Amino acid sequence: MPTYAVCRDLAIIILSAKAFGLLARRLHAPQVVGEILAGLVIGPCVLGWVAQSDFLSGVAEIGVILLMFCTGLDTDLSELKKTGGAALLIACAGVFVPLLLGTVLFCVYYGVAPGSSQFLHAVYIGTIMTATSVSITVEALREMGHLRGRVGTTIVSAAIIDDVIGIIVLTVVIGFKDPSVRPLTVLLRTVLFLLFAAAIWTIGARLFSYLDTVFEHTRRMTILSLGFCLIMAYLSEKLFGVADITGAYLAGIILCNIRDSGRIAKKMDINSYLIFGPVFFASIGLKTDLSALDVNILLFSLAFVAVALLSKVIGCGLAARCCRFRSCDSLKIGVGMMTRGEVALIVAQKGLSAGLLSSAYFTSVILLILVSSIATPLLLGAIYARWPDLDVPAEPAPAPAPAEPTA
Amino acid sequence: MPTYAVCRDLAIIILSAKAFGLLARRLHAPQVVGEILAGLVIGPCVLGWVAQSDFLSGVAEIGVILLMFCTGLDTDLSELKKTGGAALLIACAGVFVPLLLGTVLFCVYYGVAPGSSQFLHAVYIGTIMTATSVSITVEALREMGHLRGRVGTTIVSAAIIDDVIGIIVLTVVIGFKDPSVRPLTVLLRTVLFLLFAAAIWTIGARLFSYLDTVFEHTRRMTILSLGFCLIMAYLSEKLFGVADITGAYLAGIILCNIRDSGRIAKKMDINSYLIFGPVFFASIGLKTDLSALDVNILLFSLAFVAVALLSKVIGCGLAARCCRFRSCDSLKIGVGMMTRGEVALIVAQKGLSAGLLSSAYFTSVILLILVSSIATPLLLGAIYARWPDLDVPAEPAPAPAPAEPTA
Repeated sequence: MPTYAVCRDLAIIILSAKAFGLLARRLHAPQVVGEILAGLVIGPCVLGWVAQSDFLSGVAEIGVILLMFCTGLDTDLSELKKTGGAALLIACAGVFVPLLLGTVLFCVYYGVAPGSSQFLHAVYIGTIMTATSVSITVEALREMGHLRGRVGTTIVSAAIIDDVIGIIVLTVVIGFKDPSVRPLTVLLRTVLFLLFAAAIWTIGARLFSYLDTVFEHTRRMTILSLGFCLIMAYLSEKLFGVADITGAYLAGIILCNIRDSGRIAKKMDINSYLIFGPVFFASIGLKTDLSALDVNILLFSLAFVAVALLSKVIGCGLAARCCRFRSCDSLKIGVGMMTRGEVALIVAQKGLSAGLLSSAYFTSVILLILVSSIATPLLLGAIYARWPDLDVPAEPAPAPAPAEPTA
Repeated sequence: MPTYAVCRDLAIIILSAKAFGLLARRLHAPQVVGEILAGLVIGPCVLGWVAQSDFLSGVAEIGVILLMFCTGLDTDLSELKKTGGAALLIACAGVFVPLLLGTVLFCVYYGVAPGSSQFLHAVYIGTIMTATSVSITVEALREMGHLRGRVGTTIVSAAIIDDVIGIIVLTVVIGFKDPSVRPLTVLLRTVLFLLFAAAIWTIGARLFSYLDTVFEHTRRMTILSLGFCLIMAYLSEKLFGVADITGAYLAGIILCNIRDSGRIAKKMDINSYLIFGPVFFASIGLKTDLSALDVNILLFSLAFVAVALLSKVIGCGLAARCCRFRSCDSLKIGVGMMTRGEVALIVAQKGLSAGLLSSAYFTSVILLILVSSIATPLLLGAIYARWPDLDVPAEPAPAPAPAEPTA
């Protein structure tokens, strides 16, 4: 592919994402739904105009990292501390309820008895259902101006904790099959990550507060912050096996109280909405290839998608209700935790190489990612329209320049 | 390479580019020199921390396209019209003087007689020297606030015309060796490109002026403009064989008179300085691999670089002097036209496949790109310090936000 071809791909993606996004908004749906659909339409499923490439997946990766970094920068730290306990409970319920119901689904559908040789495969189907991917929910909440509220903060922190617990579950399950994977090592790495996060929080927050007094309002402050975010994202995944977006979110939280944080978030947001964001959301559609779909797989996939979505709503929703959220807010949290993303595909990939999953189930996972990515923003929009937040007075989306319409 | 590795590469590039850029500024050199040196240091030549990848070359390509788009958006159209005739003459001199002196160099160095079988190889060495790559000069002039002046505008338009003439020369020379390449076809494509440019100028300027009244100050205006730039860049190279940056510059000029142009340029600039720009400038250093250098090639390369640089200064400088520029301004124009970039490498690549060039000369071309990229900003800085522009009152760099220090 000649280098100038990247212009073509990028032009098609940003223009179609914007067009579909505006169309979605006209139909009273969040723009992010339109951007995902744009990727589906221009990708291999329909028109085949744009194919995945190393360039596009790199840009998409930076896109989701910028998104989570902005989310961290926008965090209301006192709100985060208040919701921390609830988020932990919600994350646990959001991992174990899907794990249980997914296992039950496979056992019932294929008549597998607990303890038989096929049982571990059933557990693996449940494992795939555990990992929430919060980026779509974040974007939908941001568009509606609900990201900083109590519900928004709870969803984001629960999804981050969910990621850490999900990794432990995954490793334990694979450890039953593959003796070279040691659950203890993974537990140790997770503990080390928590220590690392605490250390960086203490040092990083002080260092950047100092830098802020010296370099406030300079380009180098923005560049240093972005560099910090990228290094945190890289180290989280490289050293501790935690998703890179968790590291980026952590970097954002560490910087959320420095004086320049609003300005930095605005610069990141301009990068994000012009190029990186649309490429990330469209790439979800671009990656989707449903050509392997047949009736058998379709039937199981439908059941798989339904169980995966409902188990999160039930698990997280009930846990939120136990933490004294209103019923409607519990519903928002349950629905917000429904989205799945690349992590589910990565888990499926690992199951394939460990011999715990047949490649036929990839279609189910892709369908789950697609359906949850489109359904979540739509449902959240409808629920928020019916039951507005109590604690957040109709707040504008925080990141973009206040004077500028967001479309 | 796992996807999260892009974070590592990007963090190293943007942080080292900024550090070296600030160091260069402290030594009274343009920051862009530091950014190129950063690429050299982190690349295969010295530390080997970052290697070229599809992701990085895609981002670099978008970087240079955004740079030329911003240059077009910042253009003073009346200045461009005034300098058009001079630019044409300077471009012609800037192509034919290097072509002649490069041929003479090869003939003298290797004792080749005109008309002998080796003579076409000598002409090809001259052909490699023809293509100016203006992006480094543009960035240096922008940093110093001289881009919109008479000299700056003349350099940019001469370099664009130079690109078109250079393609014709290249095709004619290759046409002597390879009968499948038809110079007439290339001439026809070039004429078609000029017609296409005129048509798009007429339609595009009106369309965007209308859109500007409807969508002024909206995100969709910025996205539409960026989409337009990317499409123009793609079509220029795909349909007419003209460099993609020429199309991007043209798109910028077409939009330079709409009311939103300043705002659009500012958004592009934020994207450019944070991520895309540093990657582009660092990638020049990243691509450099001098491991094949030996004494023989080094000696020829030094002569090659000296002739390539001086021939542009002499050719363009004299032509500018003929167009009644002051002597010091003629020197600025000559030095500004010295920079060579990827186009020289592409020309060398075509010569290799046509059997007109041995791969040993690639080192000479890489050395030319590196030396000219570093020397031009340094020399321009020194010349402007000694002889400031007459027509431009110490103007601030136009693209960044006025209230914000540019480092």
